[in-house]
Amino acid sequence: MNKPLILITNDDGHDAKGIELLTRLMMQIGDVVVVAPDGPRSAQSNALTVTHPIRFKKIEEKEGLKRYSCTGTPTDCVKLALNEIVERQPDLLVSGINHGSNAAINVIYSGTMGAVLEGCENGVLSIGFSICDHSFDADFSIFEPYILKITRTALEKGLPHATCLNVNAPMGEIAGIRIARQCDGRWAKEFAKRSDPQGRSYFWLTGYFENHEPEATDTDEWALSKGFISIVPTKIDLTAYEAMDAVKKWEL
Amino acid sequence: MNKPLILITNDDGHDAKGIELLTRLMMQIGDVVVVAPDGPRSAQSNALTVTHPIRFKKIEEKEGLKRYSCTGTPTDCVKLALNEIVERQPDLLVSGINHGSNAAINVIYSGTMGAVLEGCENGVLSIGFSICDHSFDADFSIFEPYILKITRTALEKGLPHATCLNVNAPMGEIAGIRIARQCDGRWAKEFAKRSDPQGRSYFWLTGYFENHEPEATDTDEWALSKGFISIVPTKIDLTAYEAMDAVKKWEL
Repeated sequence: MNKPLILITNDDGHDAKGIELLTRLMMQIGDVVVVAPDGPRSAQSNALTVTHPIRFKKIEEKEGLKRYSCTGTPTDCVKLALNEIVERQPDLLVSGINHGSNAAINVIYSGTMGAVLEGCENGVLSIGFSICDHSFDADFSIFEPYILKITRTALEKGLPHATCLNVNAPMGEIAGIRIARQCDGRWAKEFAKRSDPQGRSYFWLTGYFENHEPEATDTDEWALSKGFISIVPTKIDLTAYEAMDAVKKWEL
Repeated sequence: MNKPLILITNDDGHDAKGIELLTRLMMQIGDVVVVAPDGPRSAQSNALTVTHPIRFKKIEEKEGLKRYSCTGTPTDCVKLALNEIVERQPDLLVSGINHGSNAAINVIYSGTMGAVLEGCENGVLSIGFSICDHSFDADFSIFEPYILKITRTALEKGLPHATCLNVNAPMGEIAGIRIARQCDGRWAKEFAKRSDPQGRSYFWLTGYFENHEPEATDTDEWALSKGFISIVPTKIDLTAYEAMDAVKKWEL
């Protein structure tokens, strides 16, 4: 009976608290290979490094664990791991634990979820874990048993083709788990304007999330707001099938 | 009767041939504001600049056209344009013309399409244009009437909520237009390994696209291979609705 081979990455860098916890948890389930960025790569989405080459180096090896750091983005890490590092196709990819929510539209900006989409694209069962707490010393401990249960169940049940999971935990106490859909909404007031000593303007990304369906009770934002962990089954096929008939009627 | 306000961006930089052509074409349709990266930002997906601030500067202003360059990613450009540059919500965002295909899974890596998803997310009718020809002197001229027709029709008909278009043109002659779905497939053999003068390995992203459904005749890859322009209606809601029932049955 072989142990599952588990690939771990993140977007906060290989020495972030979240990936250290995730590594410890996954070592209870299988053999672990960590291939993570050599520093923070937040909000890198599915960005790829194309204008210069990337490198990786082994930073630790012990029974059941190999750890590598990589100079690329989270998606680069997954590609490099699958093509050049792991000896066989992993049974599972987990990414995170991210400091900060990847619910709602954040899924398209997130480096954590970029890595998950990349694993999924390559046929690996892939799950992203995030917690709605940006603070460096966020308490991940109450999330631990849920991460183990979700991961073990996913390994047992599997997921449909080209489908992965986006798992987010609320701040504070956890009321349970809700399977949810991606909430509709957008970021607003996105820049803080400053002036440099020469009087020239520069802009910091900031803003707040505007929920466009605050009354809906089946969204990830609703679940998180009520203290539930949200699990959004997520896909890499972006085709808007429901719009195809309308566009086919255009006279082009 | 007001002219449409059209926001243009790309991922090849504000001085790329593709965006110059797209700007010329869009000036036939409306008032144009270009906010594009100050250099190449290929494969930047929906990456955001979060670790340092960004800037923009006006590089041209004349009747019906304002052009700005921005130090950020394509998605940054759209966010900055909508928050800080344009005076009202644009009627249309177009991105490109990209040198190289953004069909199939390339949609999730593409900076061109990242900008389109961002426009869509902000409620702007958004279309990405790409051509399957990487060469610097690619001939875009036979694509021109199609770009105008697709754009004018989209402005007239509109698109459903949270839906945008991913338009790709084939190499060479154009046989017509096909409304298609995103082809299933993946990139393979993705890295070229080299050694530096100190004997240390480094890796260049490369590889080839492996079509997982070469027999299907409704995909973007099929359309392009037969000389058709492919139009994929594309969405920003990544929820795998078809997988929700299965995951809800997990005992979590």
